[in-house]
Amino acid sequence: MPPEVRIIPVTGVGEVRPGDDLASLLLGALEAGGQALEAGDVLVVTQKVVSKAEGRLVDPAEVEPSPFAQQIAAQSRKDARYQEVVLRESRRIVKMANGVLITETHHGLVCANSGVDESNVAGGRVVCLLPEDPDASAARLRAALQTATGRTVAVIISDTFGRPWREGQVNVAIGCAGIAPLTDFAGIDDPYGYTMQATLIAVADELASAAELVMGKIDRVPAAIVRGYPYAPSEDATARRLQRDPRADLFR
Amino acid sequence: MPPEVRIIPVTGVGEVRPGDDLASLLLGALEAGGQALEAGDVLVVTQKVVSKAEGRLVDPAEVEPSPFAQQIAAQSRKDARYQEVVLRESRRIVKMANGVLITETHHGLVCANSGVDESNVAGGRVVCLLPEDPDASAARLRAALQTATGRTVAVIISDTFGRPWREGQVNVAIGCAGIAPLTDFAGIDDPYGYTMQATLIAVADELASAAELVMGKIDRVPAAIVRGYPYAPSEDATARRLQRDPRADLFR
Repeated sequence: MPPEVRIIPVTGVGEVRPGDDLASLLLGALEAGGQALEAGDVLVVTQKVVSKAEGRLVDPAEVEPSPFAQQIAAQSRKDARYQEVVLRESRRIVKMANGVLITETHHGLVCANSGVDESNVAGGRVVCLLPEDPDASAARLRAALQTATGRTVAVIISDTFGRPWREGQVNVAIGCAGIAPLTDFAGIDDPYGYTMQATLIAVADELASAAELVMGKIDRVPAAIVRGYPYAPSEDATARRLQRDPRADLFR
Repeated sequence: MPPEVRIIPVTGVGEVRPGDDLASLLLGALEAGGQALEAGDVLVVTQKVVSKAEGRLVDPAEVEPSPFAQQIAAQSRKDARYQEVVLRESRRIVKMANGVLITETHHGLVCANSGVDESNVAGGRVVCLLPEDPDASAARLRAALQTATGRTVAVIISDTFGRPWREGQVNVAIGCAGIAPLTDFAGIDDPYGYTMQATLIAVADELASAAELVMGKIDRVPAAIVRGYPYAPSEDATARRLQRDPRADLFR
């Protein structure tokens, strides 16, 4: 019988500010809730608190909108200065229609508005950017957690992305540390002797989606522990592996 | 503190054959494992066992390939009769390149090869189609489970789909019963007073992905219980709500 998997919300973290030590905040919140990290846990942390701790906040009022940003703003009913921030976070526009701007970020992530988010940010009109290097953020957080607890864990940084063909957004992994983000079943015999072709499961995205079930959007649950999932440890795997090579991507 | 969510594998179901009573098989396997369905559970069942019970199996040898199926076969290194089965399950070809065939099924699902699967099927070269109406399958299974147990549950039928932009496949919901597949946060104030725009979370897909964590591909775990998730009950919601209207889909 495969083991049960548990998704445990991390609550009571409070407002995260630039310069905060996120590992300490998370461990303190866990302890206050009578919880602790265990070896083999996967800690899924929302991008928002990572970005806030790293000071990835911009006041659009301090940004001068380009003529192109003003054009986009007119099409999308969004602020031109906000659009300017989005363009600066983009290396490519994948699709632009109906006021929706799908971009490829400097990291290679494809999402709406380069992940620049106006919600859940304290302090007026400040917007929140994605972490500069989400894999490095995950690795730093993991190292700090391991130093403090002496336990080996994996860390996933998640964000909520839309996708083609299907309604609604789901949580995906934009950064990871300590875990192989993909599980490859290619070449493995299934129970009937058929050799499975090209079944590559994006487990890091599934873990991020599972964590979202205890997070909600307005509940101030910035992290969740996934306990009991037998992930493949990896010291050098990154969430960049989840980005399809643009040359092999029929949709970019 | 939001409650913990548990993902419990359902094992010991054994080989499912056309005409089998899937509700009885699942409840028997649960009982044998010392488990039982509880009110409020979400039962996620893989498409494969639903299709098998419904007899959605085809022997490609009995299908005459059209000239177009033969053309596709030559490009994809797959069998022309298999491609013919795929074409008959399709109402539109969304993309065709590099030997990959992305289709829209008669249900409106967009996936590789219309979801026609060669793996995990007993009996030679038989292939497995998606259920004819996955929402109806979910509703029938839910009704049978509720009749047998007296408990109100939700049912999701899942399959493993690829997606643009990102590597790897994830489990998504192709059918559901008893649960609203989308949670709408539009117009709700976040903790900072910012009214959230257009945040629609595809919770049924996230539940399907969470269930995959205990399923694996070769472990014969055809179902999982998600326990403790406070889903929005709905007697008439369907997984068709997760299909983006083609007119509003920039990628179809």
